[in-house]
Amino acid sequence: MKKTNINAELKGNMAFEMQIDGHTVITDATPENGGNGLGPSPKALLLAGLIGCSGIDVMTITKKMRLEVEDVNVEVEAETRDEDPKIYNYIKLIYKFKGNGLSYSKLERAVKLSMEKYCGVAAMLNKAVPITYEIKIGD
Amino acid sequence: MKKTNINAELKGNMAFEMQIDGHTVITDATPENGGNGLGPSPKALLLAGLIGCSGIDVMTITKKMRLEVEDVNVEVEAETRDEDPKIYNYIKLIYKFKGNGLSYSKLERAVKLSMEKYCGVAAMLNKAVPITYEIKIGD
Repeated sequence: MKKTNINAELKGNMAFEMQIDGHTVITDATPENGGNGLGPSPKALLLAGLIGCSGIDVMTITKKMRLEVEDVNVEVEAETRDEDPKIYNYIKLIYKFKGNGLSYSKLERAVKLSMEKYCGVAAMLNKAVPITYEIKIGD
Repeated sequence: MKKTNINAELKGNMAFEMQIDGHTVITDATPENGGNGLGPSPKALLLAGLIGCSGIDVMTITKKMRLEVEDVNVEVEAETRDEDPKIYNYIKLIYKFKGNGLSYSKLERAVKLSMEKYCGVAAMLNKAVPITYEIKIGD
């Protein structure tokens, strides 16, 4: 079992700065929420984590499937409820693939495997938020 | 209800780059996991989100309480299980406060209010992962 340790320091009003895997990450409230906008807002980092986690899986799985994926674009939409705690009502992902002779059913299987079996971020978030996904093949 | 929309582009092997609140966020697998280490790994962004979210609450609440908080440091430790999906077994936060005449019980109440009432990130993650916290007052 792997342990992750992060140490975050207050910067300014209510921003926090930390090092993760050798990279500096700053998160802050937006100015309309009393922050200085020094970094992305914390909740949106969950969406970044979900994109990254499932993206890594999908790239790994499609490579094993020998699919010729040339480009991937992921759109995510999330709706935040008004009441505290302000959790997401839903998260919707749209995966758009470009490549040579891509099979829709194989791409769908790759995304499904990530979302239902491999992606730890999805497995944690979907206990609290319904996550749906859609696959598109572009030019 | 507020909608958040993010669009992420594949960069290199399996990194994804996106704009969040006007800031560029890149997430990637570490080289030992087949990535190029271009950014923090996705799962750790959940911890950054948790720190940022509860940090904003705690700074807001302690200000309302008129506590003279001069500095805050947040340590987080999370253990990742070995089986797929690789979720966290637990998340432990340690809040270390510095300031003038700080009341332990008020600080504890501020953190408790965040973790149990206000912080949307905590409310989502704690459906899947036990989250504990500790408060320390330093010099």
